[in-house]
Amino acid sequence: MKLPATEPAPPRVQDVWARYHAVLESTEAQLAANITSDVALVGEVARYLLKSGGKRFRPLLVAAAARLAAAPTPVSGRDPVAVLGCVVEYIHTATLLHDDVVDDGDVRRGRDAARTVWGNAGSVLVGDYLYARALSLSVSLERLEFVEVLAAVVEEMSEGEVYQLSVCGDVDLSEAVYLRIVERKTASLMSAACRLGGMVGRARAHQIGALADYGRNVGIAFQVADDTLDYQADAEVFGKALGKDLDDGKITLPLIYTLQRASKDERERLVAIVRAEGGPDPEAQGLVLDLMRRYGAIEDALSRARDFAAKAKTALSGAFPDGPDRQALLVLADYVVDRDH
Amino acid sequence: MKLPATEPAPPRVQDVWARYHAVLESTEAQLAANITSDVALVGEVARYLLKSGGKRFRPLLVAAAARLAAAPTPVSGRDPVAVLGCVVEYIHTATLLHDDVVDDGDVRRGRDAARTVWGNAGSVLVGDYLYARALSLSVSLERLEFVEVLAAVVEEMSEGEVYQLSVCGDVDLSEAVYLRIVERKTASLMSAACRLGGMVGRARAHQIGALADYGRNVGIAFQVADDTLDYQADAEVFGKALGKDLDDGKITLPLIYTLQRASKDERERLVAIVRAEGGPDPEAQGLVLDLMRRYGAIEDALSRARDFAAKAKTALSGAFPDGPDRQALLVLADYVVDRDH
Repeated sequence: MKLPATEPAPPRVQDVWARYHAVLESTEAQLAANITSDVALVGEVARYLLKSGGKRFRPLLVAAAARLAAAPTPVSGRDPVAVLGCVVEYIHTATLLHDDVVDDGDVRRGRDAARTVWGNAGSVLVGDYLYARALSLSVSLERLEFVEVLAAVVEEMSEGEVYQLSVCGDVDLSEAVYLRIVERKTASLMSAACRLGGMVGRARAHQIGALADYGRNVGIAFQVADDTLDYQADAEVFGKALGKDLDDGKITLPLIYTLQRASKDERERLVAIVRAEGGPDPEAQGLVLDLMRRYGAIEDALSRARDFAAKAKTALSGAFPDGPDRQALLVLADYVVDRDH
Repeated sequence: MKLPATEPAPPRVQDVWARYHAVLESTEAQLAANITSDVALVGEVARYLLKSGGKRFRPLLVAAAARLAAAPTPVSGRDPVAVLGCVVEYIHTATLLHDDVVDDGDVRRGRDAARTVWGNAGSVLVGDYLYARALSLSVSLERLEFVEVLAAVVEEMSEGEVYQLSVCGDVDLSEAVYLRIVERKTASLMSAACRLGGMVGRARAHQIGALADYGRNVGIAFQVADDTLDYQADAEVFGKALGKDLDDGKITLPLIYTLQRASKDERERLVAIVRAEGGPDPEAQGLVLDLMRRYGAIEDALSRARDFAAKAKTALSGAFPDGPDRQALLVLADYVVDRDH
């Protein structure tokens, strides 16, 4: 990022979280307070997930977007920014619960997945509860357009997940289709978080559009980077097993690049590995990682993620004047690519 | 039902469906038209369920309640009654998809459950899609109170299901707790259907309350009767296996009555059967059915269902004058208990 010499250094990512500390604390309180069910097991499963160390990245997006859009801070009563932070985090948590069932996942954020503890039933049903609770909460803000954005995003995310399911194991998956899936299943919620922040504020239509655009590109960058981490990260740090996507037959960008660049023989071996019943053995996994390294697939995927982060920054810079909230969002765009977990 | 000799005979249940034929046809068209996803698999799974012979009972409730509440029929454009019929049927279908995952169900309406064909993943995700699509559609009617009712009902249904999950295999389950679960997991949506019908019409607050009350009691009657069918019905007619609830460790009213009335020895055998790994064998199942018969448990459960049907009718009769739409709803209250599938 090129900055004139007179400007202060851009904030570090921890400064960004700190900047919105007050409203994020308020969101945190909402996350606990809004699980109002008198059915004990509902709260038990929901809290298990909500207290498992999520970064509250989506509430942070709502908060930063709202501040950038000059949302008023209410003198009394519930701050809609905090409520919407809770709403997007509930939706995110619901997708995690359902994803674990979809992927037969045993581990989530470094510990047993909810379905390991309470079975598929608990994960599916408490996920449903959280989706519905999120919508109910958004209704309580009495702005139909909030509900509209949220219902549309849940629809889009589930479509993205089904789309992914329908191309599972497809070794000819193109980068374009992969990106379309990523946009739906992950980026749509980040886009909605930013859009909602803008809607709470006094932002004009083109600014709300820019925030949504920023969020979508940040979301794509986030997921593409996440998909590279699946082939790099230490399970203890990242909280999931290396090569889990490969196990699940999910074709992500590093594998797409490797498949495209491999020799005919290598490709045949890769295809056999992807299609192997029960997932690849350690030797096969080693071969995949070797080929990825040889063809620079992970680097190139990360570079693609950086392209989207850059697009996100451009979208924002074109619509808002410089200032600490714009700076904060620009920093977050880089952060989603360069984080190591 | 006592009627003065001058009044015509009450309509038969098929007359009820016929009376609302036009709007139900319109709902049927909406059911197909509103699955707008460009992801082929979404439509495939959704249509598989939607075309599997559902009776559209919830859309019928919306239609009859709306007519009773004197809802205007729009001269052009979409009839909100038809849209809301589609909304409640999508929600109902979503719960079926998720229930199959929760119960590891293999058969639904006499054919393979969606999860048998597309796995848990397809059922969970297309269920999510249908929930979200339902909420989106309700937003398009631009009345926040519709969305409020619907978000609350999805919340309540999922709570009811989790509640049921948390008492699975509990041989000391009381009738009161059982009914509370039934109210949430089943009756809440029928209540919402009737409430929404009333809201579309010009009904006054106490009339909308009466419709909701009617729907809740009809829903309880429906589910209690359904739970007796599980111990009576022919799998080919009812579309699911006899004693499936027992297999799943679900304690329903016929079993509650039997457990309460059995001798100490019989109760011990029943408890062992309920707790048996892998569900009861045919001999154990036979014993359960024998005891149910001996203690009149099924008859008494059905009689309890009739109590709720009567409450439903009283709620309605107190709030609306007599007429063909009130008659229709009264007939439906009896129908849910006496249907054989």
